[in-house]
Amino acid sequence: MSKPSPLSGFPELLPAQRVVEREIVASLSRTFELHGFANIETRVVEPLERLAKGGEIDKEIYVLRRLQAEDSDVDSGGNMLGLHFDLTVPFARYVLEHAGKLEFPFRRFQIQPAWRGERPQEGRYRQFTQADIDIVGRDELGFHHDVEVVRVMVEALDALPLPGLSFQVNNRKLIQGFYRGLGIPDVTAAIKAIDKLDKLPSDEVARLLVEQAGATPEQAQRCLELAGIRVADTSFVQQVRELGVGDELLDQGLTELAAVIDGCASAVNDHVRVEANLRIARGLDYYTGTVLEVFMDGYERLKSVGGGGRYDALASDGRTTYPGVGVSFGVSRTLIPLLADGVLDGSRPVPSAVLVALVDEDSRGHSLAVAQQLRARGIPCEVVAHPQKFGKQIRTAERRGIPFVWFPSADGSHEVKDIRTGEQVAADPAAWTPPTEDLRPRVVMKEQEL
Amino acid sequence: MSKPSPLSGFPELLPAQRVVEREIVASLSRTFELHGFANIETRVVEPLERLAKGGEIDKEIYVLRRLQAEDSDVDSGGNMLGLHFDLTVPFARYVLEHAGKLEFPFRRFQIQPAWRGERPQEGRYRQFTQADIDIVGRDELGFHHDVEVVRVMVEALDALPLPGLSFQVNNRKLIQGFYRGLGIPDVTAAIKAIDKLDKLPSDEVARLLVEQAGATPEQAQRCLELAGIRVADTSFVQQVRELGVGDELLDQGLTELAAVIDGCASAVNDHVRVEANLRIARGLDYYTGTVLEVFMDGYERLKSVGGGGRYDALASDGRTTYPGVGVSFGVSRTLIPLLADGVLDGSRPVPSAVLVALVDEDSRGHSLAVAQQLRARGIPCEVVAHPQKFGKQIRTAERRGIPFVWFPSADGSHEVKDIRTGEQVAADPAAWTPPTEDLRPRVVMKEQEL
Repeated sequence: MSKPSPLSGFPELLPAQRVVEREIVASLSRTFELHGFANIETRVVEPLERLAKGGEIDKEIYVLRRLQAEDSDVDSGGNMLGLHFDLTVPFARYVLEHAGKLEFPFRRFQIQPAWRGERPQEGRYRQFTQADIDIVGRDELGFHHDVEVVRVMVEALDALPLPGLSFQVNNRKLIQGFYRGLGIPDVTAAIKAIDKLDKLPSDEVARLLVEQAGATPEQAQRCLELAGIRVADTSFVQQVRELGVGDELLDQGLTELAAVIDGCASAVNDHVRVEANLRIARGLDYYTGTVLEVFMDGYERLKSVGGGGRYDALASDGRTTYPGVGVSFGVSRTLIPLLADGVLDGSRPVPSAVLVALVDEDSRGHSLAVAQQLRARGIPCEVVAHPQKFGKQIRTAERRGIPFVWFPSADGSHEVKDIRTGEQVAADPAAWTPPTEDLRPRVVMKEQEL
Repeated sequence: MSKPSPLSGFPELLPAQRVVEREIVASLSRTFELHGFANIETRVVEPLERLAKGGEIDKEIYVLRRLQAEDSDVDSGGNMLGLHFDLTVPFARYVLEHAGKLEFPFRRFQIQPAWRGERPQEGRYRQFTQADIDIVGRDELGFHHDVEVVRVMVEALDALPLPGLSFQVNNRKLIQGFYRGLGIPDVTAAIKAIDKLDKLPSDEVARLLVEQAGATPEQAQRCLELAGIRVADTSFVQQVRELGVGDELLDQGLTELAAVIDGCASAVNDHVRVEANLRIARGLDYYTGTVLEVFMDGYERLKSVGGGGRYDALASDGRTTYPGVGVSFGVSRTLIPLLADGVLDGSRPVPSAVLVALVDEDSRGHSLAVAQQLRARGIPCEVVAHPQKFGKQIRTAERRGIPFVWFPSADGSHEVKDIRTGEQVAADPAAWTPPTEDLRPRVVMKEQEL
């Protein structure tokens, strides 16, 4: 078989890069668990009827077919199976399927790959890992959980070795109430138009507001003024008031957004910021209150690297409705470009902190015994493959990025060498320990990016 | 949307069960890393030409098709893509693709799902997680790595909360050399016949040896005698010698198998045993030396829960050959039946060790501050959703399996209650710590199964 070529849209990591991904997953998991979020994994397939809801997502779904079967594989009801394209659809199904065995409000985190058959580009892959947190209630879910879930993701991302991050938060009630109070005839069309501010100049958006949402030119101007408000504190409330629009839903949206900004205030810093940005709408998705997107400094070209919000009906089985609020973070979308740019890397490709040298093949048992003594105290190590000259064994450690070489001796006079400094000292395999920072591979981040 | 039904062959875990799976994955990873194995993950798809080798596996492959595309999805060379059905095929491809960036011998572990479109049954799923370790060399790989990889898996499985396990080890050189030295005309047919000893009575297997492998009745008898040897030490060497067959390959096989048994001797115990079992053949797979299967006490009906061996050509790009030796452990195959039988479970479904109670809605900020103090010292906790009567809040903790309820107080006189004993004591949120065994959910194993 010939040398294989990479598969476009299916990025794969080298061992040192995988160190970074694992540390990110472990760190996210630690923060989520400190806040009481339970981990689950869902199967990777769902019946097509759950995945395809008539939206544009349809064309991106991978369906499964058994190689030797005439037709696509089906579930017991005859539905085709497809790979999930996010973690929200399978989670909603999981909640419905297992509701009788779950306690609500149910906090869960889920870190798994998802698949989309779309054209690959930087930050967009056919297989990509996401980290989602959601809190789901049965019938009702207090608003304070909106504050909670945003704050947890702020803390989780702050703990990661990433460039600066910015949470841009808004509230659908605020936008909808404002448009309604302003008297815009078609609120949905207005949201759709404002959502185009990324791509179109504002006078073009104003034209859309007039033509498609039925706004007067003056109303359109007010909408643009609202969308222009972006602050890192709750001063947006006063700014919106000054636009002179009164509406009950608007008031509720202002109160909720202010509570999210306030609730995160003690967690933000130079690394992770939280701002009220009144142009964030998250398209026409199922969000009903809080909405947010996350952007990474220097990587604005990736668009959002995370996002989420409040949905009053995450799932429903016709009798019971499950409201939810959640935030999703794009692990692959963030990590693959940072690894490709060399901003992040693992400090070494192997877990081993120590390479145990070999005097000759007959004494392999002796070297193995030293290795076992080190492992018994939690020190990862490996025994060199061949009893070459010590110089060659040291170069083996260098090539593998292993910081220490252990020279065993039958008479018990062991020595260990730090191959970076060349320092070699007598050491006892039952007592010697490497410095903590050398014990495991670490994530290394280019200084200027910190 | 109606209540979804489970999908046959795609088992999913409840949060407390997932605690068990995560602990098993974490424990395996710890042992593998102590021995210098680096973690990788491969993409889940491979070009069909790599997956389909004309064997019976073909019919079990899931191929991908984009929902809106006319044809199946293809790679740049026009090959269909399929989900991997094990972790060996993608690992072999990974080694070939990234060989220039890897250091050999390359030790890797990989814990990922794989997919087979086969009929589901206990221990056999359409989506299942495996944990594989392999050591791969470039051009050559010393035999001592056979001993190493078996020993590492023995230590890894010994650290798991599982019923007793038995490693059954053999060597293909031993069998082949024995048959050759005995003068059996068709050695391959003889291996095939002996491999049926699980399913057929031995006189039936003797008949196959005569009819299909061209053995004389007396030779067939010798083959059965060899296959009957099963010991926990190296006394098999003498037992084979007494069968009176001489062959160079047989000698090499005996030496290698004895080295594996010897190399594991100091790691075995009542929980994990290692035996030489001279009927193990692992079918007609690509193994060329060491072969082994792992069985679980009380779950013999699952057949092997792990297996592996030596393959002199794990991968080859036509110019370079990569020999390897590895062992695979079936995480789902083992775990799903044990969870279903209630042998294993998680001690609670949430990470929270503490539920912080709420005096009233206005003091939520105070309860949140207590929770943050506890989290800052690594104690997972959650604040109760509603300021109900304390009795109700305690029952909330009970339902969620949370062992401690924290009662905050504005005047600083905090108290914490162990809801299992009812004991309630004054506590400082900046200093109090739960007992270590309560800090995180644990794996609970039924006593009689230990």
